[in-house]
Amino acid sequence: MGEFDLIERHFKRPARRAALGIGDDCALLQPAPGTQWAISSDMLVEGHHFLSTVDPFKLGHKALAVNLSDLAACGAKPVAFTLALALPRADEAWLAPFSKGLLALADHHRCELVGGDTTQGPLNICITVFGEVPVVGGRSQALLRSGARAGDDIYVSGTVGDARLALEVFRGTVSVPAPVFDAARLRMEQPTPRVALGLALRGVATSAIDISDGLLGDLGHILKQSGVGATVEVATVVNLIAALASYTGSRGSFDAEIPAQDWQRWALSGGDDYELLFTAPVAHRAAVAQAAEQSQTPVTRIGQIEAHRGLRLVDAQGQAVANNFTSFDHFA
Amino acid sequence: MGEFDLIERHFKRPARRAALGIGDDCALLQPAPGTQWAISSDMLVEGHHFLSTVDPFKLGHKALAVNLSDLAACGAKPVAFTLALALPRADEAWLAPFSKGLLALADHHRCELVGGDTTQGPLNICITVFGEVPVVGGRSQALLRSGARAGDDIYVSGTVGDARLALEVFRGTVSVPAPVFDAARLRMEQPTPRVALGLALRGVATSAIDISDGLLGDLGHILKQSGVGATVEVATVVNLIAALASYTGSRGSFDAEIPAQDWQRWALSGGDDYELLFTAPVAHRAAVAQAAEQSQTPVTRIGQIEAHRGLRLVDAQGQAVANNFTSFDHFA
Repeated sequence: MGEFDLIERHFKRPARRAALGIGDDCALLQPAPGTQWAISSDMLVEGHHFLSTVDPFKLGHKALAVNLSDLAACGAKPVAFTLALALPRADEAWLAPFSKGLLALADHHRCELVGGDTTQGPLNICITVFGEVPVVGGRSQALLRSGARAGDDIYVSGTVGDARLALEVFRGTVSVPAPVFDAARLRMEQPTPRVALGLALRGVATSAIDISDGLLGDLGHILKQSGVGATVEVATVVNLIAALASYTGSRGSFDAEIPAQDWQRWALSGGDDYELLFTAPVAHRAAVAQAAEQSQTPVTRIGQIEAHRGLRLVDAQGQAVANNFTSFDHFA
Repeated sequence: MGEFDLIERHFKRPARRAALGIGDDCALLQPAPGTQWAISSDMLVEGHHFLSTVDPFKLGHKALAVNLSDLAACGAKPVAFTLALALPRADEAWLAPFSKGLLALADHHRCELVGGDTTQGPLNICITVFGEVPVVGGRSQALLRSGARAGDDIYVSGTVGDARLALEVFRGTVSVPAPVFDAARLRMEQPTPRVALGLALRGVATSAIDISDGLLGDLGHILKQSGVGATVEVATVVNLIAALASYTGSRGSFDAEIPAQDWQRWALSGGDDYELLFTAPVAHRAAVAQAAEQSQTPVTRIGQIEAHRGLRLVDAQGQAVANNFTSFDHFA
């Protein structure tokens, strides 16, 4: 089967939102009046962002999810995306489930596949996603990294650290009971982009970022671009590892087989969480709770923005904890 | 040097057209009123789209050029692009010239780098480009593949076949004198996207496509989507190989060392030309000449669109020539 047949069979569907979809040199899209476009591009490489053994359906989901997560972090509403795909060979048995997983998530968010490229090469998935952000009275409603102010609360959505736990199990560095691993693996392989929360936080949050490289590293981007510092409660973040409760429950205690430092490291710098990390003024606590409720997304307050530069970690008693947690770097 | 430092050093520049450029989860762009967005995405893989020995400066140029060529084929004005890059290692000696070649062409077309991704992996370059097309009286001015009508002239810009000749020399299947090779190699490594011609053809051409997979194959897309057929004069197209004149000149004759069929194949189905193939009514011949003049781009009439489906080749005497020329397929 040739390149063009492959594209037609698995990816071509009638254009909906697009004035012109797949099949010409360019896709044509008509921006809605009074909106700005939010654009993000992510590349996923086998062996670096996913294991070669991953179910292609789940990989299709994840490839789009990590891009939608960037839109969520900007408070942008998904509109469309392009897909560029390098494949070792034109393998139907891989393409069929991959496109199903991808398009199921796309349909859920009404985000239309409008074009792209297919070529031969080591497996590589590059998605570029487009979202809309309203401009009201000349002001963009986008959530940026640069808006955090001293005194703001720091929040994180959902759970963190589970994707990293699953990766460590795959790597063989730790072992956990099967149900604990299954739950963590789901978080690694099929993250949920927090699109609805991002939309609900427009006008409520002062800054936002999605956690891809690790909570502290991504918080560092907010601090740098906002010119502020922060204090984060370590225990509050560690308790956000979904697998932790089931792990300690299954063993009757938080035993020493997996040291506390490991749990801390996975929660604070594990990466691959695709949760939203955001800040909001104390006066907006009720509004944040309402945004969480409205988007059916749990959020947890984990610390405070401060004028004093730097990132400080404290334990449950407010005592300083050393920060040995480095952010994920693809070339480190 | 870490991932973030690399990006900052080589790719981050102050945002111009973008409301927000590199360095947040998304770039933000404000579409101009009364315009549609043309979007295209192309992925270049080492060993498939370029040789590992290519000068990184030229590769940077080409990676953007092939995308700008898609905008040109739609008559869209370049605005911005994203770059996703997988690299085996963070190699300054490669990144510095690559970014120079890329940004030099971007600056020439005032096309702003607004975001992207850098990761480790087998060398892969994925660019997504955005252009503007005016909408006049509710009608998009974009050039599509579907607008060719029986009786239209068929034109091609510039030269064709040289990129394929250079590739064959690299592969060792033919040899030509050094100056002939150098000119052909320039066409392969640094194609010129016909952006100005594409803009000038709005309202003049009835359909357009850029030649990436081979002239006849790409013409086939126009014929299929327009529901028409065509006759193409083979000799006219073969004469568009820039290297042909210098080759025959250097040898004193069009000798048999490279058979005529090879020259025909390179011109008609060589691919990687990034010239515009377009159609226009006979009544627009003067307007086409003016568009060519205005954009300083040579164009040549190579055949005619016909109601009778199918693609027919003829020689200089109008006699039928067998069509054994297949289009390039990345999985063939």
